[in-house]
Amino acid sequence: MLGSRWFLEITTDKEANLHSLEEVIYTGQSRFQRVEILRIGSYGKALVLDGKIQSAEADEFIYHEALVHLPLLTHGLPRRVLIAGGGEGATIREVLKYPEVEKVYMVDLDDEVVKVCKEYLPEWHRGCFDDPRVEVVFDDARKFIDESNELFDAIILDLPEPMEAGPAIMLYTKEFYASVKEHLKDDGVMVTQATSISVNNYDAFRIIHNTISQVFPIVRGYWTSVPSFYIPWGFVFASKDRDPKALTIEEIQTRLANLKDGMRFYNPEIHHGMLALPEFLKRAVNEETRVNLDDSPISFY
Amino acid sequence: MLGSRWFLEITTDKEANLHSLEEVIYTGQSRFQRVEILRIGSYGKALVLDGKIQSAEADEFIYHEALVHLPLLTHGLPRRVLIAGGGEGATIREVLKYPEVEKVYMVDLDDEVVKVCKEYLPEWHRGCFDDPRVEVVFDDARKFIDESNELFDAIILDLPEPMEAGPAIMLYTKEFYASVKEHLKDDGVMVTQATSISVNNYDAFRIIHNTISQVFPIVRGYWTSVPSFYIPWGFVFASKDRDPKALTIEEIQTRLANLKDGMRFYNPEIHHGMLALPEFLKRAVNEETRVNLDDSPISFY
Amino acid sequence: MLGSRWFLEITTDKEANLHSLEEVIYTGQSRFQRVEILRIGSYGKALVLDGKIQSAEADEFIYHEALVHLPLLTHGLPRRVLIAGGGEGATIREVLKYPEVEKVYMVDLDDEVVKVCKEYLPEWHRGCFDDPRVEVVFDDARKFIDESNELFDAIILDLPEPMEAGPAIMLYTKEFYASVKEHLKDDGVMVTQATSISVNNYDAFRIIHNTISQVFPIVRGYWTSVPSFYIPWGFVFASKDRDPKALTIEEIQTRLANLKDGMRFYNPEIHHGMLALPEFLKRAVNEETRVNLDDSPISFY
Amino acid sequence: MLGSRWFLEITTDKEANLHSLEEVIYTGQSRFQRVEILRIGSYGKALVLDGKIQSAEADEFIYHEALVHLPLLTHGLPRRVLIAGGGEGATIREVLKYPEVEKVYMVDLDDEVVKVCKEYLPEWHRGCFDDPRVEVVFDDARKFIDESNELFDAIILDLPEPMEAGPAIMLYTKEFYASVKEHLKDDGVMVTQATSISVNNYDAFRIIHNTISQVFPIVRGYWTSVPSFYIPWGFVFASKDRDPKALTIEEIQTRLANLKDGMRFYNPEIHHGMLALPEFLKRAVNEETRVNLDDSPISFY
Repeated sequence: MLGSRWFLEITTDKEANLHSLEEVIYTGQSRFQRVEILRIGSYGKALVLDGKIQSAEADEFIYHEALVHLPLLTHGLPRRVLIAGGGEGATIREVLKYPEVEKVYMVDLDDEVVKVCKEYLPEWHRGCFDDPRVEVVFDDARKFIDESNELFDAIILDLPEPMEAGPAIMLYTKEFYASVKEHLKDDGVMVTQATSISVNNYDAFRIIHNTISQVFPIVRGYWTSVPSFYIPWGFVFASKDRDPKALTIEEIQTRLANLKDGMRFYNPEIHHGMLALPEFLKRAVNEETRVNLDDSPISFY
Repeated sequence: MLGSRWFLEITTDKEANLHSLEEVIYTGQSRFQRVEILRIGSYGKALVLDGKIQSAEADEFIYHEALVHLPLLTHGLPRRVLIAGGGEGATIREVLKYPEVEKVYMVDLDDEVVKVCKEYLPEWHRGCFDDPRVEVVFDDARKFIDESNELFDAIILDLPEPMEAGPAIMLYTKEFYASVKEHLKDDGVMVTQATSISVNNYDAFRIIHNTISQVFPIVRGYWTSVPSFYIPWGFVFASKDRDPKALTIEEIQTRLANLKDGMRFYNPEIHHGMLALPEFLKRAVNEETRVNLDDSPISFY
Repeated sequence: MLGSRWFLEITTDKEANLHSLEEVIYTGQSRFQRVEILRIGSYGKALVLDGKIQSAEADEFIYHEALVHLPLLTHGLPRRVLIAGGGEGATIREVLKYPEVEKVYMVDLDDEVVKVCKEYLPEWHRGCFDDPRVEVVFDDARKFIDESNELFDAIILDLPEPMEAGPAIMLYTKEFYASVKEHLKDDGVMVTQATSISVNNYDAFRIIHNTISQVFPIVRGYWTSVPSFYIPWGFVFASKDRDPKALTIEEIQTRLANLKDGMRFYNPEIHHGMLALPEFLKRAVNEETRVNLDDSPISFY
Repeated sequence: MLGSRWFLEITTDKEANLHSLEEVIYTGQSRFQRVEILRIGSYGKALVLDGKIQSAEADEFIYHEALVHLPLLTHGLPRRVLIAGGGEGATIREVLKYPEVEKVYMVDLDDEVVKVCKEYLPEWHRGCFDDPRVEVVFDDARKFIDESNELFDAIILDLPEPMEAGPAIMLYTKEFYASVKEHLKDDGVMVTQATSISVNNYDAFRIIHNTISQVFPIVRGYWTSVPSFYIPWGFVFASKDRDPKALTIEEIQTRLANLKDGMRFYNPEIHHGMLALPEFLKRAVNEETRVNLDDSPISFY
């Protein structure tokens, strides 16, 4: 018998998903968005903002390991890390696996979401908000980076989608990426989540990729499948001189051996596997000429 | 405004998907299943059997290129190929890209589905049912293989899910794989679609993998994301002496250059990328001990 | 097994209905609205405007008999009738059952909808658009009535919901009803569909009722259940000197006997049954003081 | 923005309803059925058994007043009343409005449901389970009535739908109604809920009506619209010598004046309005010849 309680996630005007709804754990409204913590039958607890799943208990590890370890392993010795967004605390959790980390800033706009995650999502953050190396700042990430006097080993952009009138639309422009570059050390690395790479929906990815290519010499798109996102998901890595493609399996293994705690998704083969783009996407990225600029930021949806 | 017409696909009792429904192109009932050809807003035309999408216009190429080219490129010179299932004709289409192919059998149980696909899905088969090298047989694939006197270069198992009382349940057992092995040349290769590898749903994959490992010395699980399937999808390759992991990028490139028509998904990096299993799945496969046998076939759903 | 094709009707932001979708008969877009003719499993063919069922093959007779016969039977001898709206032609069909009818105007804004109904909904109109007594005018009903020099026996307002920016919002105001009154003979009657009377949604009904009460001495709310509308539906009758409550069962029977064709819903008991308002609604109507005026028309949704 | 949490009620294989889901108040499983108390946006709290709404906070008064007052007002002086089913306690609540009531038995099979209703649905029962005149018996209602030595003024059958293998299937047969008749005083009355009277779904109603007509000389079908049930709902009244149609408006008013607490739905006009059957239903009932018997009980769904 089909269940009676459902979480309906409208992803586009042509597609929606239904998840069985086990429990309504929290509902609220922050200054920026509608916030829900739901328990869904298929993926356990889920953080839902404005009706869309941000991450789910069963597979958030895939997204967060993909986002963090490809760039940090590539860097090799991350001491000072800045995370833009990342309210659930799982991005910090992955960053803190590197024993050499001295300082992690997490800059998130929505203090209410962070408060709710702290209380309801311990499986995500595992207490890492209390680590003395972590500093949470409630601010616009662009403003924070622009005004910062520090240089970072890694800047991780764990942001909402770039939507018209959304809070993150100015965090995907050429000018912003230039500011990120200025705040990286010479061997620093950056990464951004880069939205869908689905067959009918990879425009945002190719524009983000091309925009970052205007700023950084080394740019590597990569992707994986986070099942609760339904469609395959993209990321873009960039740096001045580090290339994730240049790492050998053995180098990755050696670096992994130094980390605190193990991995559930990431491993040396997956590192390279994620960097393999499907042929249609490789071509689309190569042919892309659009650049996302401050004075005409593209709304990708 | 949200549309009014929807295709509801119930994938498990905990999850369902909604696709906007543009057109009802065909509906019917074969001896085995309910058959629909629908045009859905997100993925174009789709073949739907018993309410579940089998393949969709926008991304069938991902599934079919992944299924066919990893084993056939690995083989290198496929002359005689057997396809079990594959009613849409797209698996044949990919096989015929190898100029050395002399004979392709397609053995499918449901003549009605094949007839409907021939008429309504020319984008899939591109006329390849009419190629003189192709012979379509309406029969049980197990019976056909068991009784065949031929040896094949490749056997491609493009089958429905192994469901209780479903037509394919006896096509995932150790005894069946032994029969497949007997009907392969010494350098022959086989591949089977191997269901979901999603975080909460990879039991079938690991059992299929382990079952095939009882029969073949070289077994390689691989996977990719076919967006219209929602969850990441697995395949298992097997052979007596060929290993897809052993191919260099250059070898793949050379072999690709000989093929008729290009690829939209598959390329040398993707070949190896698909073979990279997530850490949790690698462990699950390694730890698996269950074997699927004729006298107690496991229903994976 | 639950079907795969569905018509989703979003009725409020808190409720929606799903009907199995058998066939997409027509889809289009007029100047005013999205137009669909769908065949739904539960109610047969349905006219759907902007995603909402207007009437359905299986139960349109309830709505149209309720709308037409309570006022026309009460009048007794309708010769000249004006219908505002009513694009399907079923309102005309019911009016033409009165043998004394000499002229029926149907004034509808959307010629495209009428054209589609003529072609696809013969079960509704039964050819009555071709009756020589019928004149279809594509115009704004308010303008047509304001400018008309005729006096009518009955004016039937078969209109869309009064929604902000909708085409019918000015057809529910005191000034409009005053114009209707001016264009009725002394024994003339009017009726309007009057939206939901559901327990949580009867505000529009009570305001319409009270607004008409500012203009006409005799005002009678009535209601029935049209299953495909889901919620119980209201109507308001008004006249200068005719009262549907005053008719005896015998009078109704006598008048019914003169009509061409029989009834499937309406009968003498139903005539009075529809006039019986639930206690909560009777009180709500009695307590209502709001009046819907031209310079501040209320959007009821 | 459409909400994210929904209660899906599948009513037939061709229709389903979605209600916004505010809160999951209780979920459990009794020996007989899945039990949920949900708060839905459109109707407040709702008791949901096996996925189907039994009654909802916003409009349960319509159902319960219709069920109870038409028969009890017709009787005039109910002292001893038996309720079969009625777990929510709202039927008792309505019965206790008659000051002459001395004893109310409520016989319900599912003690778990009654326990849950007692705790979570005080708006329904308003403490009436604690009234000293009330005796709750957990038993099969048929067995209880068959074995009872008492004669009642009124027997109220507030039962689940007659479904195959459902607990109530033997509570809609001729033999059961004969037993009910035997346990009524000479002026006693009975009533049963009698399922849908919708245009495409009134078969159960007409069979129940005809079956009761084999046993009682006076049988009156009646109906109303309970919005949360979506489709119009039927009831059948029966007695040996009392006729609800014979009551005058003044008699009903006089009797109503004696009751404790007022009505929100029922009033003298509604009493007669409910007894007015649509023409198609009147004919269907008149033409019905099927009788529901113990040895071949009809499953109405």
